[in-house]
Amino acid sequence: MAIEKIDGPRVAAGELETFVSALLAAGGADAPSAAAVARAVVDASSRGVDTHGVRLAPWYVQAARSRVVKPKPKVAFTRKAASVGHVDADMGFGHLASYRAIEEGCALAAETGIAAISVGRSSHHGATGVYVLAAARKGFAALGVTHADSAVVPFSGVKAFFGTNPIAFAVPVKKGEPMVLDMATSAVPFNRIMLRRATGKPLPPEVAVDRSGRMTTDPDKAVAVMPVGGEHFGYKGAGLAAVVDVLCAPFTGMRHGATLKPPVPGMQPVGIGHFFLVMQPAAFQALSLFDRRLADFLADLRSQKAERGQRVMAPGDLEIEEAKQRARLGIPIDRKTWADFERLAGELRVAVPPVKSAPRRKPGGKK
Amino acid sequence: MAIEKIDGPRVAAGELETFVSALLAAGGADAPSAAAVARAVVDASSRGVDTHGVRLAPWYVQAARSRVVKPKPKVAFTRKAASVGHVDADMGFGHLASYRAIEEGCALAAETGIAAISVGRSSHHGATGVYVLAAARKGFAALGVTHADSAVVPFSGVKAFFGTNPIAFAVPVKKGEPMVLDMATSAVPFNRIMLRRATGKPLPPEVAVDRSGRMTTDPDKAVAVMPVGGEHFGYKGAGLAAVVDVLCAPFTGMRHGATLKPPVPGMQPVGIGHFFLVMQPAAFQALSLFDRRLADFLADLRSQKAERGQRVMAPGDLEIEEAKQRARLGIPIDRKTWADFERLAGELRVAVPPVKSAPRRKPGGKK
Repeated sequence: MAIEKIDGPRVAAGELETFVSALLAAGGADAPSAAAVARAVVDASSRGVDTHGVRLAPWYVQAARSRVVKPKPKVAFTRKAASVGHVDADMGFGHLASYRAIEEGCALAAETGIAAISVGRSSHHGATGVYVLAAARKGFAALGVTHADSAVVPFSGVKAFFGTNPIAFAVPVKKGEPMVLDMATSAVPFNRIMLRRATGKPLPPEVAVDRSGRMTTDPDKAVAVMPVGGEHFGYKGAGLAAVVDVLCAPFTGMRHGATLKPPVPGMQPVGIGHFFLVMQPAAFQALSLFDRRLADFLADLRSQKAERGQRVMAPGDLEIEEAKQRARLGIPIDRKTWADFERLAGELRVAVPPVKSAPRRKPGGKK
Repeated sequence: MAIEKIDGPRVAAGELETFVSALLAAGGADAPSAAAVARAVVDASSRGVDTHGVRLAPWYVQAARSRVVKPKPKVAFTRKAASVGHVDADMGFGHLASYRAIEEGCALAAETGIAAISVGRSSHHGATGVYVLAAARKGFAALGVTHADSAVVPFSGVKAFFGTNPIAFAVPVKKGEPMVLDMATSAVPFNRIMLRRATGKPLPPEVAVDRSGRMTTDPDKAVAVMPVGGEHFGYKGAGLAAVVDVLCAPFTGMRHGATLKPPVPGMQPVGIGHFFLVMQPAAFQALSLFDRRLADFLADLRSQKAERGQRVMAPGDLEIEEAKQRARLGIPIDRKTWADFERLAGELRVAVPPVKSAPRRKPGGKK
C-alpha cells in the first residue's frame, strides 16, 4: 500500500483548480459546475488520490462539451423530513450535487444531530472521499456511497453486475487532519487492470476474471474484478456492494447500478444515485470526550507493532502525508494528462497553468 | 458459503426461547434481560446463524450467575437531539440494550426520517444482524455495528488490535423477507479457527497469523485473524474495522475495542459500545417506488449467471432458506450445547425443552 510515484510537471493546487475550472467553463459548464468539478478533482489530486484526480478533468470537459452531462443543471434540494433531504442533480455533474448534499446535510445535522441526503439523476462524482472530507473539515462526521455501472462479479457469479460501489467515511480529528476511509468494495479498482495492461505485469491472484468468468492474473484477459474478499470471502465485498446499491437506488429513486449503461464507451453513466449521512459529533457526546476517545484510538492504532519496514496506519494516513508533500512541491501531473491539458488549453483558449517544478531529464534525454 | 450441518436434536423455536429465557431467569436475570437474550439467540439460531445462536446461551447464563454482566440492569434512554439518542446499558446484557436502541430508533425515525442511537456501557449482544432485522420487520431499514476486544491484526501489523467488528444492514422487502447483511470485518470469525482446531483441517491461506505475526494455515498456531481482504487488500477490512470502532467508541463515549479486556478468559468484555442507524424508507421515496426499485434489484441480482453448481444470492438468502426449513423441522442443537442444556437444566431446575426430532443413530451406535 503506497501512493504511486508520478513522473511529470508539478503545479500548485490553486493554479490547477483555476485551470481545470476554466477548462470546464470553456467547455460549456456553468460557474458552479466548473468550480465543483475543479474543487473535487484537485482535492483528490492534492492528497495523492490520482486515479480520481485531475487526470479525469479532460474526460469531464468532454462530457460537458458533448452534453452527455448537462453543463448548466438546475440542482434542487428538497427537505423530505426533519432529517432527510434529496438533491436532484438534474443530470449535471455529480460533484456539484454531492457538495450540495454535504452542505445541506451539515445544515440539517446541525439542527437534528444526523441527516441523510439522497442524490438522484446524478453522474460520476469522482472520489467519494472528497465529499465526506468536506463535511469533516466543517466538524461533521459523514458517510458517503455511490453506485456505478457493472464492473464487479457478484459472489458465485461469472460476469460483472455490481459497480465498484465505494464506501467513504470521514470524522473530524481535533488536532490534525480528519480520518478518512475511501474504499471500493471491489478487490481492486478497474484502473489497476488498465495500468497492468500498460506495464505488462500480472495481476495479483483472485482479483479479476476473464470473459468466461474464470479467475485470471492476465490483465489482457481480465474483463471484470472480484469483490473484496476474493474467491473465498467475496460474499463480504459483494454484500457491501449490495448495501451500497440499495442506498443509491431504492433510497434515491434511481434504478440499480447494473441497469445503468454508459452513454459512450469509456464514459460513466448518468442518472445514478449517491447517498450521504452527516452527523454532528456534539449531538452524541460532549466534544471534549469525543475528541479524547478518538485521539486515544488513533494514537493506539498508529503505535501498533508492524511488520519489518512497515508502519500501522489509520485510514487516510498515507494521503495526509502525501498532501503535506504536494502542498510544498505542487501536484505532479502524469505526462499523458499534461499532454491532454496542453491540447485542451489550445482548443479552448485557456492558459496552461504555470509549472512549479518539472522532473529532471536524464542527460541526453529528449527535451 | 453454506450453512454447516448440525447433528443433534431439533427443538421448536418457541420451546427453545421459553427454555433459554427460563435458564437466564433462574441464573438471576430479570424478565426483560432473560427475554431479550432468549429472543436474540433463538432468532439467530432460527436462521442458521449458529455461531451466535443458542450455543452461546450457557455462556450468557454463566455471565448472569457470576454477575460479570449485570443481571438486573437499569437501562436508560436519553434523547440527545431530534434524531439522536443514547441507551445506557448499565453493564447489562447487550441484547436488551440493543433491542431498546432499535425500538427507540424506530420511534425517532418515524418522526424525523432517520435516527442514530448509540449504546454505551454494554456487553456482547450476539449477532448484530438480529437487531437490524428487528427494525426491518417493522418496516425500517437499519445499520448496526459493534466493536469488541482484540482479535484482528491491523494492516501491516503483527498482533491483534481490532475486534471482529461486524457490520449489519437490513432493509424491508415488500413481498418477502428483509434483505440482511451481517458480516465481520475480519476475513473469518475467530470461531472458524476453533472449529479447525477441533477438526484438524488447515485454515485457508491469508486468514490468520501466528504468535510472531506471520501468516499461518495451522489452526493450532493461529492466534489472531486477518481483516477481510487478506495480505494484499486487508487495509479495506481494517479500514472498515476502524470506522466501526469510531462509531462504537467516540460516538458512544466508550473506549476503543483494543482497551477492553475480557473479565474472565473466554468471556467477552463489558463496557463496550454499539451503534445503530434506523431509516424510514417512506421519508426518502414514495413506498411504491422504493419497493419496486428494491424488488427489481434483488430479482436482477438473483438471476445472474453463476458458476457451475452455484447460485448468485442476495445477502441473507441462505439464512432465509434455512429459516424455512428450521421452522418446519425445528432448530438443531449441537451435542455439546445440548449436554450443556441438560446440565444447566438440572442445576437450575428448569425443564429441558421437548425434542421435536432427533437424528437417527447408526444401528449399533450408542444410544
